[in-house]
Amino acid sequence: MPLRHNQSVYPEPVERLIDEFTRLPGIGRRSAERMAFHVLKATEEEAMRLSQAVADVKQKVRCCSICFNLTDVEPCAICTSPQRDPSKVLVVEQARDLISLEQTGVYKGVYHVLTGRIDPLGGVEPGDLTIARLFDRLENPEHNSGGVKIQEVILGLNPDLEGDTTGLYLADELAKRGVGVTRLARGLPAGSHLEFASKAVLADAIEGRQAMKLDDV
Amino acid sequence: MPLRHNQSVYPEPVERLIDEFTRLPGIGRRSAERMAFHVLKATEEEAMRLSQAVADVKQKVRCCSICFNLTDVEPCAICTSPQRDPSKVLVVEQARDLISLEQTGVYKGVYHVLTGRIDPLGGVEPGDLTIARLFDRLENPEHNSGGVKIQEVILGLNPDLEGDTTGLYLADELAKRGVGVTRLARGLPAGSHLEFASKAVLADAIEGRQAMKLDDV
Repeated sequence: MPLRHNQSVYPEPVERLIDEFTRLPGIGRRSAERMAFHVLKATEEEAMRLSQAVADVKQKVRCCSICFNLTDVEPCAICTSPQRDPSKVLVVEQARDLISLEQTGVYKGVYHVLTGRIDPLGGVEPGDLTIARLFDRLENPEHNSGGVKIQEVILGLNPDLEGDTTGLYLADELAKRGVGVTRLARGLPAGSHLEFASKAVLADAIEGRQAMKLDDV
Repeated sequence: MPLRHNQSVYPEPVERLIDEFTRLPGIGRRSAERMAFHVLKATEEEAMRLSQAVADVKQKVRCCSICFNLTDVEPCAICTSPQRDPSKVLVVEQARDLISLEQTGVYKGVYHVLTGRIDPLGGVEPGDLTIARLFDRLENPEHNSGGVKIQEVILGLNPDLEGDTTGLYLADELAKRGVGVTRLARGLPAGSHLEFASKAVLADAIEGRQAMKLDDV
């Protein structure tokens, strides 16, 4: 008996919504169908809230002109906060990394979002990122957050091949410009088991071993 | 060191979109964040397509006035199709069940969507469903798809407690109205292993054993 799979039996607007949902990351056809049915069952007001939220995010959210963080004010709230120290700039690949770091509540400096990383195989050159704007913030303090001179650049790139490539390039260029460069510590992830750590993690942990502070105990 | 978890560091429109995505079934905070970032990275046109699709589905999709299937035309394409036999009506609990059945391409009759099932504990009475409208289709052929008299009602309810309750109620009421009533076959699911089938499935399979047809072999 011939079964016609995946044939659309939905009204066109439902099929179109399922289609659009399927484009979202991590959403398969089944999930998209469930989501579309949820919208169908929701009140008109609820559906309009979702529709409007999607539209607003594109229309109201921009990149900060100083640090390229996502923002709906210009410059962003971090760049203009009196509680932040604009002499420290933490460089990240993308805004999501910034968000993760902010959620710890530990860092009090400002940021610079590269909007990517150097990836010669993927065709991403330094010129495709916001690196020139970072150098500009460094060389012209009036272009930095709060008009403050940068004293330290902290590299917060992903600990992988492209992240390291980008980090080495930046460290080299930043050193030429006479600014202190550090990078986020590498070592054992908190809560993990040494027994299951990879060689690379253990090597990082040994090489980067840190002096014990008594108040850590 | 105090970590402030789940604290929002997103611009308000991003936070609002994440929030709205989180309301969708099966979407947690992490997935919603990834989806929101996808929208942020998408072109304005792509985002507007999604926004519009959500709005359209609420504004253009309604229930068919005959069978309560989802539709953007009135009556729905199945009720008006010359390829369908409106003397056979397959009763399902919800539009999603109809879609699953349609995807097999096997059934050529029409449908009736109850928009739920009888569930005394959950407070769903026969009057909360579209049962009266099914009886009306039966008693007044001019109210049925294509104005045709119904000869057979096939119960396509879920094989569980509430489905069976609904089925027994309908079978009883339909018999009073002198129409043939059948239900979807129960038995071993195709592709399964007898060894792992539950007692209830095996009992159904034994009780409902079917005569072998030579062209099945």
